[in-house]
Amino acid sequence: MKSIVTIGGGTGQFTLLTGLKKYPVRLTAIVSMADDGGSTGVLRDELGVLPPGDIRQCLVALSESETVMRDLFNYRYDQGGLKGHNFGNIFLSTLEKMTGSVEEAVRVAGMVLAVRGEVIPVTTSDTRLVCGKENVCRGEHVIDVSVLKEKDSLRLEPEVYANPKAASAIEQADCVVIGPGDLYTSIIPNLLVKGVPEAIARSSATVVFNCNLMNKAGHTDGFTVRDYVDEIEKRIGRGRVNFVTYNNRMPERELLEKYGEEGKSLVAVAAEDEDFGETAFRPLPADLISARVTVPKSGDQLKRTFIRHDPDALAALIIDNCLGGV
Amino acid sequence: MKSIVTIGGGTGQFTLLTGLKKYPVRLTAIVSMADDGGSTGVLRDELGVLPPGDIRQCLVALSESETVMRDLFNYRYDQGGLKGHNFGNIFLSTLEKMTGSVEEAVRVAGMVLAVRGEVIPVTTSDTRLVCGKENVCRGEHVIDVSVLKEKDSLRLEPEVYANPKAASAIEQADCVVIGPGDLYTSIIPNLLVKGVPEAIARSSATVVFNCNLMNKAGHTDGFTVRDYVDEIEKRIGRGRVNFVTYNNRMPERELLEKYGEEGKSLVAVAAEDEDFGETAFRPLPADLISARVTVPKSGDQLKRTFIRHDPDALAALIIDNCLGGV
Repeated sequence: MKSIVTIGGGTGQFTLLTGLKKYPVRLTAIVSMADDGGSTGVLRDELGVLPPGDIRQCLVALSESETVMRDLFNYRYDQGGLKGHNFGNIFLSTLEKMTGSVEEAVRVAGMVLAVRGEVIPVTTSDTRLVCGKENVCRGEHVIDVSVLKEKDSLRLEPEVYANPKAASAIEQADCVVIGPGDLYTSIIPNLLVKGVPEAIARSSATVVFNCNLMNKAGHTDGFTVRDYVDEIEKRIGRGRVNFVTYNNRMPERELLEKYGEEGKSLVAVAAEDEDFGETAFRPLPADLISARVTVPKSGDQLKRTFIRHDPDALAALIIDNCLGGV
Repeated sequence: MKSIVTIGGGTGQFTLLTGLKKYPVRLTAIVSMADDGGSTGVLRDELGVLPPGDIRQCLVALSESETVMRDLFNYRYDQGGLKGHNFGNIFLSTLEKMTGSVEEAVRVAGMVLAVRGEVIPVTTSDTRLVCGKENVCRGEHVIDVSVLKEKDSLRLEPEVYANPKAASAIEQADCVVIGPGDLYTSIIPNLLVKGVPEAIARSSATVVFNCNLMNKAGHTDGFTVRDYVDEIEKRIGRGRVNFVTYNNRMPERELLEKYGEEGKSLVAVAAEDEDFGETAFRPLPADLISARVTVPKSGDQLKRTFIRHDPDALAALIIDNCLGGV
């Protein structure tokens, strides 16, 4: 069975895993540990645990348990002292606090959720995302809503090393899939962990990058597919990306206008195929936009984008082109 | 396989079930729904759910899952916004809030905890324990710490009917075991639910009453075994109790003195066997005090008694005498 390692965090990785889990492949989700907003941030501060939010989303995506259990893990309280919290986050944080190990917490939650595959925190050390040399921006949730200047200064403080299990999974993978997800707050925080770019360099895995559908205001304004790939390869090495999936269907005008009001724009290639010229990667343009514009009942982000990847279209594109068949 | 139905709540029922589950019997725990203190009370008020605390204790007692899962359900937060809450209570309350059904919550939690047997809320209607005609005392947690006057006025407001599953389990049982537990706040609240005394009357089950080890200050001061049985039979019918287990070993003087400071005394027969004279029940005196005086890591009650029933001694006494063999 071919093994696929996904790297990311947030809703993007949830979507990707939801699609991939329908295929007979061995899945390992490597999850960013930079999140510090919302329910996750409160639990980090109050209980001194690692961020549970993205781990939870991956576990739920890979869950084969009954719907009620998956709904429970995504349940978000809207009243009382638990308001703003998320049950799954509380579950994971309590287990980590109790056992002293985030990996034990993930194991037990994985058992309860009957997870097929594995979820691995990219690091088991406590760290925060920081950006800027003069005007320092500290914390993923602050950076997330800020205009991002001095992008090359994005870093983790303190510097942390990769979870050995994450590095080993990458090295042994047949395919490493990066994204979709917020470039600077979900994707790159994984690549800032020491040992992760090195593991990708050492690995003989095919590397796939799933380009976002929309640009994020203040972060990736005006970015083209090429710009995304450049930012990724700046961390994992020039020419390391073998395949790039991206959307080439124009979404409904009405939705685009709504996004425009928030300063978000379509990634430049959406309407027509970009000519990448001489390039190391093979472009995989496709209609990747989800027809069902549903919003998960709950989660860590309060604002939800409505132009989303279609999990099945994305997974099919990867499986059909990047694995040499499963 | 013989079927045993236990009626109670709190630590007493936990102890009883812990002992009984080692035997090849079909166990059904019927749980009081009057609790409204601590974490349970907050969740009732804030989420509008039924009290989870006693259900949780029964589920954990019947759990055959790994230790980490049982510890998780009993985990009590000692810091942050979750302080005072108990994980298992949050688990049950969230499920009930999400599904709208306490029974669905118990089913899912039972699955997660790999429970052998069944846990049934005595009623699925919202109600509160109330006492007094002139000086009305409202709420189980208020009554629990009050000097109880006008005991006969103890009632549920609003009046509620038995969960049909609870009534049916009682009717079909080979043996109904009542107590141990706080007489007026854990045991009798079950018998105040309409349909419960009637089901016990209709049932051909043997009825066992496990008398408490200690009297509770302000509630059962100076009570003898006979007094306990009288209070129970006042609700379920004269002569309905077939067996009464009670302790006949004197605990260590030091412990007794500690209890004495809190106004708690040994139930009168502890040191010597009481002569019950002409009585409908068969007395079962035994050394029932636990040698290991441990205190659960967490739970709903802040004060813990240290003179406890030994689960194995209590279960053996019941199984050997009241079931006609299993």
